[in-house]
Amino acid sequence: MSELRVAVVGVGRMGLTHAENIVHRTRGAQLVAVTTSSAERAEAVRRCCGAVPVYDNLDRLIESKSLDAVIISSSTSAHVENVERCAAAGLHILCEKPLGLSLEDCDRAVNVVDTAGVKLMIGHTRRFDAGYEEAKRLIESGAIGRPVLYRSISGDVNPPPLAFADLGVSGGLILDSMYHDIYLGRWLMDDEIIRVYGEGGALIDADVGSVGDVDNAVVSARFAGGAMATLTASRTTRYGHDLRGEVIGDEGAVQIGRLQKTPVRWLDKAGAHHDAVFTTPERMGDAFVTMLQSFVDCILDDTEPPVSSQDGVATLSVAIAARHSIQTGEPVTLDEQPIPPVLGRDLMKKIQ
Amino acid sequence: MSELRVAVVGVGRMGLTHAENIVHRTRGAQLVAVTTSSAERAEAVRRCCGAVPVYDNLDRLIESKSLDAVIISSSTSAHVENVERCAAAGLHILCEKPLGLSLEDCDRAVNVVDTAGVKLMIGHTRRFDAGYEEAKRLIESGAIGRPVLYRSISGDVNPPPLAFADLGVSGGLILDSMYHDIYLGRWLMDDEIIRVYGEGGALIDADVGSVGDVDNAVVSARFAGGAMATLTASRTTRYGHDLRGEVIGDEGAVQIGRLQKTPVRWLDKAGAHHDAVFTTPERMGDAFVTMLQSFVDCILDDTEPPVSSQDGVATLSVAIAARHSIQTGEPVTLDEQPIPPVLGRDLMKKIQ
Amino acid sequence: MSELRVAVVGVGRMGLTHAENIVHRTRGAQLVAVTTSSAERAEAVRRCCGAVPVYDNLDRLIESKSLDAVIISSSTSAHVENVERCAAAGLHILCEKPLGLSLEDCDRAVNVVDTAGVKLMIGHTRRFDAGYEEAKRLIESGAIGRPVLYRSISGDVNPPPLAFADLGVSGGLILDSMYHDIYLGRWLMDDEIIRVYGEGGALIDADVGSVGDVDNAVVSARFAGGAMATLTASRTTRYGHDLRGEVIGDEGAVQIGRLQKTPVRWLDKAGAHHDAVFTTPERMGDAFVTMLQSFVDCILDDTEPPVSSQDGVATLSVAIAARHSIQTGEPVTLDEQPIPPVLGRDLMKKIQ
Amino acid sequence: MSELRVAVVGVGRMGLTHAENIVHRTRGAQLVAVTTSSAERAEAVRRCCGAVPVYDNLDRLIESKSLDAVIISSSTSAHVENVERCAAAGLHILCEKPLGLSLEDCDRAVNVVDTAGVKLMIGHTRRFDAGYEEAKRLIESGAIGRPVLYRSISGDVNPPPLAFADLGVSGGLILDSMYHDIYLGRWLMDDEIIRVYGEGGALIDADVGSVGDVDNAVVSARFAGGAMATLTASRTTRYGHDLRGEVIGDEGAVQIGRLQKTPVRWLDKAGAHHDAVFTTPERMGDAFVTMLQSFVDCILDDTEPPVSSQDGVATLSVAIAARHSIQTGEPVTLDEQPIPPVLGRDLMKKIQ
Repeated sequence: MSELRVAVVGVGRMGLTHAENIVHRTRGAQLVAVTTSSAERAEAVRRCCGAVPVYDNLDRLIESKSLDAVIISSSTSAHVENVERCAAAGLHILCEKPLGLSLEDCDRAVNVVDTAGVKLMIGHTRRFDAGYEEAKRLIESGAIGRPVLYRSISGDVNPPPLAFADLGVSGGLILDSMYHDIYLGRWLMDDEIIRVYGEGGALIDADVGSVGDVDNAVVSARFAGGAMATLTASRTTRYGHDLRGEVIGDEGAVQIGRLQKTPVRWLDKAGAHHDAVFTTPERMGDAFVTMLQSFVDCILDDTEPPVSSQDGVATLSVAIAARHSIQTGEPVTLDEQPIPPVLGRDLMKKIQ
Repeated sequence: MSELRVAVVGVGRMGLTHAENIVHRTRGAQLVAVTTSSAERAEAVRRCCGAVPVYDNLDRLIESKSLDAVIISSSTSAHVENVERCAAAGLHILCEKPLGLSLEDCDRAVNVVDTAGVKLMIGHTRRFDAGYEEAKRLIESGAIGRPVLYRSISGDVNPPPLAFADLGVSGGLILDSMYHDIYLGRWLMDDEIIRVYGEGGALIDADVGSVGDVDNAVVSARFAGGAMATLTASRTTRYGHDLRGEVIGDEGAVQIGRLQKTPVRWLDKAGAHHDAVFTTPERMGDAFVTMLQSFVDCILDDTEPPVSSQDGVATLSVAIAARHSIQTGEPVTLDEQPIPPVLGRDLMKKIQ
Repeated sequence: MSELRVAVVGVGRMGLTHAENIVHRTRGAQLVAVTTSSAERAEAVRRCCGAVPVYDNLDRLIESKSLDAVIISSSTSAHVENVERCAAAGLHILCEKPLGLSLEDCDRAVNVVDTAGVKLMIGHTRRFDAGYEEAKRLIESGAIGRPVLYRSISGDVNPPPLAFADLGVSGGLILDSMYHDIYLGRWLMDDEIIRVYGEGGALIDADVGSVGDVDNAVVSARFAGGAMATLTASRTTRYGHDLRGEVIGDEGAVQIGRLQKTPVRWLDKAGAHHDAVFTTPERMGDAFVTMLQSFVDCILDDTEPPVSSQDGVATLSVAIAARHSIQTGEPVTLDEQPIPPVLGRDLMKKIQ
Repeated sequence: MSELRVAVVGVGRMGLTHAENIVHRTRGAQLVAVTTSSAERAEAVRRCCGAVPVYDNLDRLIESKSLDAVIISSSTSAHVENVERCAAAGLHILCEKPLGLSLEDCDRAVNVVDTAGVKLMIGHTRRFDAGYEEAKRLIESGAIGRPVLYRSISGDVNPPPLAFADLGVSGGLILDSMYHDIYLGRWLMDDEIIRVYGEGGALIDADVGSVGDVDNAVVSARFAGGAMATLTASRTTRYGHDLRGEVIGDEGAVQIGRLQKTPVRWLDKAGAHHDAVFTTPERMGDAFVTMLQSFVDCILDDTEPPVSSQDGVATLSVAIAARHSIQTGEPVTLDEQPIPPVLGRDLMKKIQ
């Protein structure tokens, strides 16, 4: 296979970005189709990607037999079904995070993928950001010694539409946003989280509360190796899209984050000022390209995806536990070996 | 009273700093005596403060009847007894934090103080730092809207001597260090913490664990008004004395902290570099002077101390609850009106 | 014209970047050809841009009659001749800076362009950097009042190859690098430089001196409106590719620059550290795309190019004057109306 | 001599600071008197320093024979006469910079000092700032290799009173303010400036121009060893008291400066913000104490003052040359051995 034939399933904001990146910024791949039932989205695709076949549903796309891989950027609640059908059709898959909204669903999807022998990569974008990659490299180089504390924050400027905040659609703040902090923590600390305790509330946007979600949350976490973490997620950081991570080791620390957008500072009688990033593309634009290229390369080179389905399932386990803790006011302990096949299924099922 | 006559009780590292600041940097006060039974410490006082009467115990100092106020910087475990005796003698008191190691002790001391009608101020130094004062001013000005998240970290470069780490001497990491994060949070958020959950461990320095203490800890906290907090304390931030605070509101945020010591950056093939503060005086030197002046002024002007005994007791309540949570693995709920006289005494007594 | 047919003349490092950006990152344009006589460069083009016709000289390209516009990224010493031939052939032109090495040459080229009625834009990349654009916007908004001081620095990590440093090839440090500081100053201050005085030397790399160039230089400059500037250019900023600009007005200031590459800071016993950019693409990558898009748009929309040939000539005048001052040790005064047709030709010709 | 008896000659803003620092922050010295003919200033001294003898002129102070050393903080135009009389009386001297307004005057004063065998230290405060000291240490450690470029800026928020701006009183912007940049450059680069060219103007405050001074100026300078400098001085940096220095070597660079006052950053929809220092004490307060201690120590220990009279004369030479260049539009060359006794007296006398 000299050039990977890729289709994008679901061309909302993220799917459109993936389509555009496949066409304009990825080596070794071509965009062969998208799926959408909306004429307006089809037109948006045409504008940024040129003439591309548009299928109004996944079945028709699969029947076309003209592709090698799919990027699934449909609604989270449809991820598992989409993954199962694409895997069954022998297609390699890059699926937006989270893989699903329940561990049972995810297990089922992973089984189908394993049986089909296709590759499944989870779209944990931030892990491909140059900042997080450099931090990981520094930690692995021994620059900070043994990691003992992890601090992370994810701040969005505004709550999402209510339809999205709904726990049954996106999983809510914890599964949708703090999920990133959990994934990055597991990756940077090279360890699994085994206990979480959370506080959360719909403090600012009562509507978010009306669909069962929170707009701000904090979580304390414990890793299997003893290290500790504080995770913070907010939908109301009005001052910018605030993504920060920090790992403190017994010989040093590493801090990741850049709120400033342009390299400009202005000064007047009121002090010194600089601007801020307010959207994900402003901060993470390059990471989307790096992630996509990484997906394409792992298929062309037949190597393991850098983010596995097990990563997706383990991260989701912690997120579900954290959400449960926030809802009940009790700490939740995961099995000390949370990687499948064990994964504390008995406990975890109870709390989903 | 035109000039306050002040004695310093206990001239260890902190007491010596107080003595020197009274002599050289405070208006309206004079140093009339110190207490110490060590000839070496007496000599240290003489070197930095000139000829000052030295008493070898508190009784003799009180008998001298030559003073108006004391600064108590003895061991934490002796605070309450010292406060009681000085208050009974009619002396105004600035007592290093924490006021005591148990709430019962503190209540007893506060009763003696109230009966005697003297002023008792708790030495919460960081609150007098220009950075925290500016942050408080900004929050009160409405610059960040309603505060919803508080994040704080206190990092010391090395664990203290084992004799000090002992829970019965200093109260350990939580009562000695995270105490600051709790006090500052209550003050900056203008609210009381009503629930805490903590994780902690002697991850790096096993000796610290041998005396019952931890060297790293994280705590999730909930305020009465709904806001949330993450508190982090470490005795092993080898890269510097890392004190940071952050309040996120529904219209903005404020961040406090400066690790850099000199205003110098050097650059070479390996990148850009700057130095760091490694000790409390390097970061907080001016705050000690401001605190002392504030104590002197409140007596000379007969106004309320800016940090009351109730502040001390409420902060200690939360610290004890956090330490208990770390020890038991369970969240601890304080009464929703934790200010005395209520203060959740029944629960709190149980967990001390 | 729905899509601009563009050829790249000269595919060295910069030309290759332009070719790749036309193919992958520019709307409304297609790459129809490149010129190079090197099989190795032709292969490099094929790798990053796919199959594109390659001509071994400019004449053959022009004869092909299959194009609307060219990007001239040949050696500086060939710019003027290339511009003249392309203009005569009715092609629109984006020419790398500087337009030429002498004002007479530039005048001649501009005459040909004007007669042919084609568009000529000079490739002043830094002006399209988001940082400089934001600074310009702030100044024009009145945020800093009336500009009175301009400070600029351009630092390269290493001297260029000797063959390039040669004054007859690149114009040397002042025409090649400080040229940027001059152009940006004219643009940000919205004023013309009328007097310069410079000091320069081959302080570090004696070889650079052997071909008549300097490796470090400083220039004091005066604007027609009275404002002042200091310009610094270095080929030996080993710590990174250091591009900074600053405008101080009578009500505030604006500072532009970012040396840090990844948004990561690491900390250890030696202090805090961050990395740096070391190459132009690391710092200015996006500006190349913005510049190219701007060129394409001005042709498709038939508007004036944002950087005119007069900008190129006026900037070159100041650069030549500064180089002359460095060589002679005397200040050089330009006419107070340095914009063509006057431009102080009599003085300027003498000093070239 | 166990404790140095010091008097302060002239208790304007700076003299009062010196008096207060002698009393409250200096080891080994006591304040024995001040001179002032103003009852209001005498009262100001009493408020901050307690009861101190006040003499209404220098003669009476000298007659009192109760002192070992003086700090001369009278008007610059009176420095030389004050130095001569104190030296003749056998007193050690710390004299505010500049030592005088002409080189002839300075030479005369230095002769008297040398004959009397007393110590004369020039009050170059910034050299005692922790930032500049750390930068000097880094340069001497070899961290940046061989220094080749020096960039310095001194910005005051507002022009001084007209009576002070007068060239005959303070020497104007160049002798009063850019003098610092010159001194620091000589010190940091460990080399002498041998050629200067300046541009200056009263761009913002026409009144300053009416007394012969400028409010903004830039200077290019050349060191004897070949290195180069740009110096910028402004009386109109409305955004703060902006003091920055930078040395670029052939292996790295060092940058000095801190505009931020409190360690606080606030963030809102308009971006991120921090405050600034606006006065010299806010930025340089500690340096005044360090300088004073250094003066006291060099007398008590009978060592050479860290800033010699030759430093003062050499710095003044360059400042006068720079002012002359600004006034004439011509570069000024100093002798290559500008240290006395040579110092280019013939040239320098002509231009004063």
